[in-house]
Formats: sequence, structure tokens, C-alpha cells
Amino acid sequence: MRTFLDQDFLLKTQTARSLYHETAASLPICDFHCHIDAAVLAANQPFRDLTEAWLGGDHYKWRAMRLAGVPERLITGAADPEEKFRAWASVMPNLIGNPLYHWTHLELQRYFDIDRPLTPASAAEIWQKANDCLAKPQWRPLELLNRLQVRILCTTDDPLSDLTDHAALAGRTGKLEIRPAFRPDRFLRVLQPDYPQLIAQLAAKTGPDTPIPDTIAGLAAALRQRAVLFHQNGCRLSDHALDTLPIRPAPQVSVDSLYRRRLNGDILTPDEAAQIQYVLLSELAAVYKDLGWTMQLHIGALRNTSSQYYDLLGPDTGFDAIQDQPIAGRLVQWLNDCQTSGRLPRILLYSLNAKDNMTLGAIAGTFAHDGESAWVNLGPAWWFHDQKDGMLLHIQQYSQVGVLANYMGMTTDSRSLLSYTRHEYFRRILCNQLGEWVENGEYPMDRTALDHLIDRICWSNAYRLFTE
Amino acid sequence: MRTFLDQDFLLKTQTARSLYHETAASLPICDFHCHIDAAVLAANQPFRDLTEAWLGGDHYKWRAMRLAGVPERLITGAADPEEKFRAWASVMPNLIGNPLYHWTHLELQRYFDIDRPLTPASAAEIWQKANDCLAKPQWRPLELLNRLQVRILCTTDDPLSDLTDHAALAGRTGKLEIRPAFRPDRFLRVLQPDYPQLIAQLAAKTGPDTPIPDTIAGLAAALRQRAVLFHQNGCRLSDHALDTLPIRPAPQVSVDSLYRRRLNGDILTPDEAAQIQYVLLSELAAVYKDLGWTMQLHIGALRNTSSQYYDLLGPDTGFDAIQDQPIAGRLVQWLNDCQTSGRLPRILLYSLNAKDNMTLGAIAGTFAHDGESAWVNLGPAWWFHDQKDGMLLHIQQYSQVGVLANYMGMTTDSRSLLSYTRHEYFRRILCNQLGEWVENGEYPMDRTALDHLIDRICWSNAYRLFTE
Amino acid sequence: MRTFLDQDFLLKTQTARSLYHETAASLPICDFHCHIDAAVLAANQPFRDLTEAWLGGDHYKWRAMRLAGVPERLITGAADPEEKFRAWASVMPNLIGNPLYHWTHLELQRYFDIDRPLTPASAAEIWQKANDCLAKPQWRPLELLNRLQVRILCTTDDPLSDLTDHAALAGRTGKLEIRPAFRPDRFLRVLQPDYPQLIAQLAAKTGPDTPIPDTIAGLAAALRQRAVLFHQNGCRLSDHALDTLPIRPAPQVSVDSLYRRRLNGDILTPDEAAQIQYVLLSELAAVYKDLGWTMQLHIGALRNTSSQYYDLLGPDTGFDAIQDQPIAGRLVQWLNDCQTSGRLPRILLYSLNAKDNMTLGAIAGTFAHDGESAWVNLGPAWWFHDQKDGMLLHIQQYSQVGVLANYMGMTTDSRSLLSYTRHEYFRRILCNQLGEWVENGEYPMDRTALDHLIDRICWSNAYRLFTE
Repeated sequence: MRTFLDQDFLLKTQTARSLYHETAASLPICDFHCHIDAAVLAANQPFRDLTEAWLGGDHYKWRAMRLAGVPERLITGAADPEEKFRAWASVMPNLIGNPLYHWTHLELQRYFDIDRPLTPASAAEIWQKANDCLAKPQWRPLELLNRLQVRILCTTDDPLSDLTDHAALAGRTGKLEIRPAFRPDRFLRVLQPDYPQLIAQLAAKTGPDTPIPDTIAGLAAALRQRAVLFHQNGCRLSDHALDTLPIRPAPQVSVDSLYRRRLNGDILTPDEAAQIQYVLLSELAAVYKDLGWTMQLHIGALRNTSSQYYDLLGPDTGFDAIQDQPIAGRLVQWLNDCQTSGRLPRILLYSLNAKDNMTLGAIAGTFAHDGESAWVNLGPAWWFHDQKDGMLLHIQQYSQVGVLANYMGMTTDSRSLLSYTRHEYFRRILCNQLGEWVENGEYPMDRTALDHLIDRICWSNAYRLFTE
Repeated sequence: MRTFLDQDFLLKTQTARSLYHETAASLPICDFHCHIDAAVLAANQPFRDLTEAWLGGDHYKWRAMRLAGVPERLITGAADPEEKFRAWASVMPNLIGNPLYHWTHLELQRYFDIDRPLTPASAAEIWQKANDCLAKPQWRPLELLNRLQVRILCTTDDPLSDLTDHAALAGRTGKLEIRPAFRPDRFLRVLQPDYPQLIAQLAAKTGPDTPIPDTIAGLAAALRQRAVLFHQNGCRLSDHALDTLPIRPAPQVSVDSLYRRRLNGDILTPDEAAQIQYVLLSELAAVYKDLGWTMQLHIGALRNTSSQYYDLLGPDTGFDAIQDQPIAGRLVQWLNDCQTSGRLPRILLYSLNAKDNMTLGAIAGTFAHDGESAWVNLGPAWWFHDQKDGMLLHIQQYSQVGVLANYMGMTTDSRSLLSYTRHEYFRRILCNQLGEWVENGEYPMDRTALDHLIDRICWSNAYRLFTE
Repeated sequence: MRTFLDQDFLLKTQTARSLYHETAASLPICDFHCHIDAAVLAANQPFRDLTEAWLGGDHYKWRAMRLAGVPERLITGAADPEEKFRAWASVMPNLIGNPLYHWTHLELQRYFDIDRPLTPASAAEIWQKANDCLAKPQWRPLELLNRLQVRILCTTDDPLSDLTDHAALAGRTGKLEIRPAFRPDRFLRVLQPDYPQLIAQLAAKTGPDTPIPDTIAGLAAALRQRAVLFHQNGCRLSDHALDTLPIRPAPQVSVDSLYRRRLNGDILTPDEAAQIQYVLLSELAAVYKDLGWTMQLHIGALRNTSSQYYDLLGPDTGFDAIQDQPIAGRLVQWLNDCQTSGRLPRILLYSLNAKDNMTLGAIAGTFAHDGESAWVNLGPAWWFHDQKDGMLLHIQQYSQVGVLANYMGMTTDSRSLLSYTRHEYFRRILCNQLGEWVENGEYPMDRTALDHLIDRICWSNAYRLFTE
């Protein structure tokens, strides 16, 4: 029997251990997609306690606590921090098989040097020990990132942001680069009640006396101005949540007319909105192509399922699920139209439904850009699939329909500053799979080739997005 | 090489063997969803022979025999029992990898103390030995259930049933409780030719001179009367086959008018029927919520695919398959409407398509009921997925998006009285997975926590449905 | 650590090794579905070099090279053969986990006795050694097939073919039978611009002065004439690419009128075309039933996604992907209508999306033909799923919902004459799974039963399609 979470955690063979410890472990981290707030980094204040660090905004944990029957008062409510921590500790032993179980204990070991499993019995000791650490300057946000060798971290930012926090951070973070990423989701959510006001705000940002854009091309031009500002601040990626896929406009439809009707306060149908999205996404693709950016498409979240809890807690609080619609036909049509019109930027495709792994992998392989590797590529296993079995399946299926050397590695996609041990988690899983193939005689023990693969997957494929 | 089906069957590690033999094996059985006929239990007559016990109504076996090329005469036809048994024996060796292979041999070992694999060569000996047992009183239905420590068994009953068999069984079954479950599927099958007559029968049951309900609320009130009768007879669960998902009525649609048109003999479209189902299911949800019941939704069967065989043999004879439509959007809409209107009872979701495992698990986690664990939960792996790989995948995916301690364990969902060894089969698979996690260093060897998990999953989560 | 690709490649247990080496390895090959050109076999000319043999038409390799960033000039372009080979060699080490990695090295070992992994460092030596072989008469196409014990090979042929190459090959190939297979896809692609001309060509083939058929029954009668010619040349299988599923005509639709409108040059909608396909497929099913043929349905390819590359390179050049629509409902309706009208031939179902494995397996089990095994059956794992994990999952899921003894084994589905080692690859994977079940105590060590299973799966189930 192996000791729980020892140094060879998840590494079953000698080859796997060697690949991880000698090659993967020391590579720097490029976290090109996360939800950490630049303001938190700019302030760089110590956490009050482990409850703030762990339970302050992590809806993965909130969800598990609710499922375990913990009252909301102890999750997002008014209970005091230690009481909340104890509630979380009480849930832990029931989370066998859930990624939170491994994440939690990796974080305890790597950030706080705590080896004891978290249970109701160990809660008091762990609470004390972790809080003692967090009070020290070495446990402030930027110090935590540097300790784990994070070299690039992309935040997720609204186009209206002036990136003042990024400007304030510039030159103050040593080897670590904090870069913005461009997420114009609000400008595609045409059905939202405040959409006309949002467009007015954009126009005002663009310059005094700028008229409100009355075509989609005009809207895209205004967003291009913001993108240029982002580019000057180091941005190289954009990011779109495609909860549903856009629809190519029917020949007889004037999408600009639909857009103007919406600006005038009309209610559109979901199909009409999806046609506006088709055109706007294509226009934005052209912007990203021009700037040399990579465009990320996050497909298939089913958000805010519970109206009752949405009214109570708002979005991103643990009430999202997985959509299960077919996606291939519409996605291919949009990619093909972009390619045909010369507007296809580097793309990363993510799906929240693992049924799409092979489909997306096969589609990606058909949108070549002569002489470039994986112009359309997959992003890492995402959200509900960012866990041991999900990552492993994603790696395996990617390799079956693609070229594994192109794999984009790992991002935390997290709101938590303590989540950077997930890169270690990914690397262990990757090295274990590589080691298994080698030890089973399915790939030769060619250390140079394997080290090269690991370097590309864990670091340089991502780093290249910022250097080309 | 391990011996075929020895005492450590499916238990690969020492930890797995210890968890199974010392903890899981002795827990009682709560079979909260099966299709055993209460009349058979009330009569408690011995089986004529192994063919009656095994092949009398088990369409899983019929299907395998047909696929193997056995003529219908030897399956459901007029052939004599021993000839049928020999036909079944001839198919066995070809069923490697099929759950029937393990089920059959577990049943031979546990019920008849027969260790020899069933083949054409062993058929005569096994036929004799098993039939000798079945002639004895210890092999009558209730004795078989008690031998395997079944404590609760829920039959599946039509609302028009007067539950006379359940009444006759009351107090006569020792530690075993035979309870009804409420399955009003016929009242939702609006397109069936005899639907108006069925509603008339319900009205007549409700009381002499009761008018036929002319609204869906009225229909639900009549069904509530039957549910109350069921409750008095120990019922705590209802069960709905959702071969397709209901559709929320469009604002301009009067669903009561559609319902009245149907009562008057009009033919409705499938979409109109689905809108009636939406409202009726919501009304019934309110009934179940009031009574403190759990509502089971069995989603995604594709029934009676072959008209030729349906005309010959009727339903439930091995001609059902797996539907593959997206389900998330419509399901979430219905659950949310029920929650918003305060009518959401405890729910168990089942899908016949494993593509839905993660989707349903993620959805379930978003319909919390403050302070209750897993108010919306998944039922066990169902039908085509109730087999070694299917159960294991279901357990694993449940753990990834949920809290494994809430897992609802196992039900036989069977027409066969000999199928109770499937609970053992499930427990071995569960303990093997738990043992593997522990031995791989992915969970600490915390025996108290593990025993608690096993108790909840194999027994007390289900038992709690009857005690809260 | 196991040596890379040694004699026990993929065979992890002693039982697996024994089953493979003593039973599976020596069985002949029946390759009932491939895309080798009969003209190449009739000519039987040596390959110019390894680039022609490997990269001449294999779009699997082209796709991998594009994904790896190789310029098109070195893939399908004007570069010289050795340069192309070196480009392929440079991609190899990055293909860990991709079936091309194993296929390539199996082919090097079995056809050229080359054990060295292909890398940039070994490329020159391998190029020389393989080319020296290919220049010799023992490496001509028919000699290569005979060396691997291929006994039946079905090409894929258009109904308008006069099968002159097959006639020329008759009696000249020793134990090897080269048979045509009937693939009338062009006659179902109603929306293609040249459809009316195609029908005219068919009429002209049928006989001088034959009028152009003006009903679908008439079209089917003309195709029946071609099928009879194919039958006389040894054909026993047809093959249909169902990129989308046909739609049962609405009661008020005259499908013959739609067909006539199309012949007159009208543009139809996709739904109208799908209704013509429904009727024509049903008529052709009747033809195949009469002739005792097996009808193959290849469901779910998403072809020619990139217009830019289609214009450049045409079809079948590596720009196909995986469709993800639901398929169960429409497929069942068509199968049932065929069965009800007495026109259901033996069917083999393939899907390009592994989400359909269980669905198709369950559906197949419901269309019985009394006394025949698996009248509707699945074909082997197809295309993107014809690789180690894909085949294994297909075998496992087939066994869970079916009778594994009926499994249809393996076809190359390939354009490459060197691809016959994939049968060995399949047999190793199968034997490893069987061995694992036996060694784990999940199936008894019954060698007679296991040898019988292997013979059926690897050879006789397929061979029987030609002998009944």
C-alpha cells in the first residue's frame, strides 16, 4: 500500500517518477487562463485566515458543502470564519474520488507543509497552523505565485477595464508577468436587459462625443480600440463563453437591423441573438487575427440553473451545470466561414461536456494553417473535467486524434490563489501516462523525445502564445 | 491466475477484500426499485423449476438468446422447460463480458451452492441440482429474500391498484418489509388510445358518482387520493418513466383545453402531449413533496422498437433500446419551475444513456435544499448500465461531480427473485474501487471514514428514504 | 519495463500471450471493408519507394503532418519523395498515443523486418532498407496480401463500375479472393449538382434506349441490375455512408414528385433530400435482402469541413471530422419500417462517434430474425475509433449489451496495402482483454470456449457473410 499523497503521488512506475521528478517538476508555470482579480494582486495583502483563502470565492467547495447538507449560513452566510472552516473539514472525508480531496491536501502540503489529512479531528490544528503562515509576508499573493514558479498569469478582464491594476503591477513582479486577457462576453449577451446601456458605455470609453455604433462592424471597431489598449498592456488572448453556439444568419436577414432594433429596446428571440453573435464573433476573430492573438472558445456551460439561488447569491456561486447539445455542425460552419474569409485566428476550443473531446479534436485537425502546428487546437480539460480521470481521458483522446506534442497543458481557471498546485497535479497525471506507455512497450524509452514532449506540453506550447 | 468467481471475486487488493468481507457483505439490503409482483410474494409458491425462476420473465436473458440465434420457440415459445434451459446453457459460454455471465454464476453459487460454470456439458447436472433445491420450502420467494437479508423491497404499482397483496403480506414477512411504489405512467401517456377510459376508471375508483376530472389539477387531485392510500400502505417513493422529456407550455397554450380535447377523443400531437405531461408532473411533484416522498425519474428508454415483435409478444420482452437525445435544457427548466413554486420533492434521476452521467450529476448539484444532502440526487446505474463497467463508471463520475457519500447504492430493477445477488456484485465493485484509491495513496487508510461511506452507500442512504 | 513492440506487444498476461500466439495469430484474414483500388491489384506493380507506399494516399498521415506544422509542400505537394519521408520521420516521435505510431512500427517490423523506431536519426537507414525491399517482386501488392494470409478482400466500388479489374484478377490470386462491394452513395447524394446526369449515366449503363427512371422504384430497379452484376462477380456486401440519417416521408409528401423535380434541375431542401434517401434506402434494402447480402451503414462522418482545403485538394484528404447528432430515433424508425415490410437484410451498423456504441448495440439487439444470430449487428470500431483505446472500448461495450461471440472483428477500411498488420493489432487487443478477464477470475480458463470465440471474432463471423 502506498502512503497517502507522498512524493510519488500518482506516479506508478519508475519511468513516471523519473519523468516527473527530473523533468516536469521544475518547469515554470504559464497559467494563461484564470479568474484571479488583478486588484488582489496589486494590493498584495495577506489573507485574513484560511477561510478567506479557501472559501472566500471558491464555488467548487460551496457546491460540495451544499451537496453534503451543510446549511448555507456556513457556506456563504454570516457564520464566523472558523465555524465555516469546521464545516468544510466535516465534509472532506466524504469527498473520496472528488478532485477537491486531492486539491485540498496538495495545497495543505505545498503551501503550509501540513501532511495530516483534513478531518473534523485535525481541523483545529490545521486551522491554527495555516493561519500562522498566512499572517507572514511570504504568504501574500505575489509571494505565493512566485514560490510555485508562476511566470505568466493571465487574468480575465472586461473590455471596459482600463487595466489600472495591471499598469500598477508592471515591473513590480520580478520574473512573474501579470497579463490581462480580453473577455467581451457582455457585448455578446444581446438579450440582457442592460445591453443598450452597455453599448453606450463602450462608446463613451472610446472617446468623448463618439456616437453609439449602429452596425456590428461599428461595434467591433469600438471593441478593437479596447483590444489595442489590452495589447499594449501585454494581452495576447481573448476568451468567449459560448453557452450556446452562434447561428449563421439566413440570407434574407439583416443582422445590423436586428442589432439596431435591440439598441432601440426591442426584445429579440434567442435565434435572432445567435445570428448577431455569429457576425460579431466573426468580426472579433478578425481583430484577434490582426493582433496575433489566440481566441479561446469555452463551449457548453449551462449556467444559473436555479432561479431561487440566483436571486439569492448571483452568478458564479455553484449553480452551473453541463449543457449537452450537439455542437459539431454549427461550430464547423463558423470556423469554415472565418477561414474562407481570412479571419481565422489561432483558436483554443474547450467543451464542458467530455462527449465533445473526440469531436473537437477531430474538427481541430481539419482547420490547418500551412506550416503552423495546431492552428485550431484544444484547450486543457475544463471545469468539471479538470480532475484526475477527466484530464487523463482528455490527454488520451487528444493523442488519439491529434499530435500529443501540441497539447496545451494546464490552466487553473480558478479564482483561488492557492490553486497553483493543480499544475503539479496535471504534470503527475501526464508523466504517469507517459511512463505507462513506455513501461508497457508502447513507446521506446527515448528520454530526449520524452523530455521534449513534457517541456512542450507543460510549458513551451503555452509560452509560445506570448512570444510569436 | 485467480480462480473463477471465488470468494475474492472482483476484489483485487487486500484493502478491497477487507472492506468487502468485514463491512459491506453483512449489511442488509434495501431494494427500493424493482418489478417483482406483490402477488407472487403473497402466494409464496415454490418455483416449478429453474426455467420458471430464470427464464419465466427475464427479458435480459431472452434478448441474449435471440442475439445468439436461439429460435423464439425455445425462448418465449412452446418448448418444454428443460429444452429451454439447455438452450440458455448453450448461450452462456458466448456471453463473456456480459453481465448475465456473472449474474448467472453468482446466482448458481449463492442460491444453489453450485460452483460449476454453466455450459452445455454441465447443463444436465445443474438442472437437476437446482430443481431439487427449488422443490424445498427454503427456496420459496419470501425465504429467498430473507436469506439474502433483504429488509425493504419496493414493488412497482399502478395507482389503480388497491394493494390487496400488500395488505395480505403485512406483518407476515418478519424483518422484511414489502412496500408499494407509485408508478402513474399510464396517466401521463396521453396519446394512448384508451386514455379517456383510464381517466374514467380513476374517477370511478375515487368514489361513486365522482365526476371525471376536467382539469389537470383535478386529475392530480384524484391521483393524490390514490397516493394517500399508497402512503398508508407504506409507500414512500414514486416512479416515472420519462422516455421523452416534458415541454413547458407556451404562454398562449391552455393545457387544460388540450387535456379536455383529449378526453373528448381528439388526437393530440406529441408536443401537445408533452405540455400536458409538464403540468401533470409538476402537480404530482407537489403531491410527493407534501407526502415527504422521493420522486424517481427514469429518463431515456427507447421502447418497443420492433413493431413485429411488439405485436407478437407485447412490451417488456427484450425490444427496448437507448434514446440519445439531449436532456439537460428541458430537465433543468422543469426542476427550476418546481423549485421556484415550492413543489420540488426529493428527486432521483436515472438515465439510460451513460453520456448523461456527468450532466445529471452536475445538474443535481445545483438544486439544493438548504441543510439537506443531495435533495436532487442520482439513482443507481440503470438497466443497460447496471453491469460491472457501467456501475464503476457511474460511481466514478458521480464522485467527480458530487459527494460520493450520498450515492444511492443499488437496486435490482428486476422481475427476477433470484437477482438479489446483484447487490453483492455492486458491493464488490464499490469496495474494489475504494480499495484501489486507498492502496494507490489517493485516500488515507481511514477505516472509520471508509466504513461510514460503505454503510451509507450500501444501506443507510436508501433506508433513510423510508424513515425521514 | 517491456521492450518496445516486442513479440508480446500489448499482451500483458500469460493467458493473453497464449491465446494470441497459439490461436489468434495464425487465423486467416477476411478484410470485408477496405478502399484499396482493384486496378492497383490487377496491375500488381512494385511501389516506387516507401513514400509512395506510405504517403501516397494515406490521409491519416497527412492530417498528422499538418497538425505537426509540416508545410503542405511536404505532404501532398511537389517536394521529392525522400524529403517527404524525412518530414514524416520528424513527426513520428511526437505521435505518442496516436495509432499511427503503432501502425507505422508494426508495418516496419512485419513488412520490412526493421525494428528501429522511426526518428529523424534513423530515417536515412530505414528509407534505404525499405526501398531495397520494395524493389523486389515479393513486395508487390498481391504478394504483400498473401504474406499476411489475407483470404478475402472486398474493394469498394461504384455501381457504374464494370468490374473489369475484378474479372482480370479472377483465378489469378491463389487462396486470396478479391471481391467487389457495392457502394451506391452517389445515387443517394440527391443535392449534388450532377445528380440528374448521374441518373442518366445509370440508365445508359442499364441498356441502350433505356428511359431515365422517373420513380424511385424505377431507380432502384436499375440499381438492382447493377447489383446482380456485382453478385455474379462475388459481391456479398453493400455499403452506405449515412453522414446524416434519412427522414421518413410525411404522409402528404409524394417522394416520387420530389425526385422528378430534382431530375428536372430543381434545388431541393436537405429535408426533402432526406425523404428521398429514406425511400431509396428501403428499396435497396429489399434488393440486398433478395440477394442475401449484408448492408453496411456508416453513420456520422462530418466531411470536408474546410472549403479552402476542399477546393485545393478535394475529398478524402484529411479534412473530415465527427458528427454528433442524436441518431437513435430516426435509425430505429427506418429499421422497423424495413422489418415490418419484410425488407430488412443483414445489417452492419457503424458510427463515427463512440457515444453511439451502446445505443447501436442496444438497438441491434432488438431487430431479431428468428433463429439467426445478430441479424442486425455492429461493424468494427471505425476510423477515428479504430485504435487501441477505441477498439477496446468498442469490444467492451459490445459485450455489455450483446453477445461477444457475434463480434465482427476487424477491417482495415484503408487505402494502404501495408495496413494489414492492423488485423494483428486488433487480435492482440482482443486477446489481451480475454486474458485479463480469465486471469482476474471473471471467466473460467475454458480453452475450447475461448478458442471458439477467437475463431469466430477474428475470422469465421466475417467469412460466413460470403458462404451463407
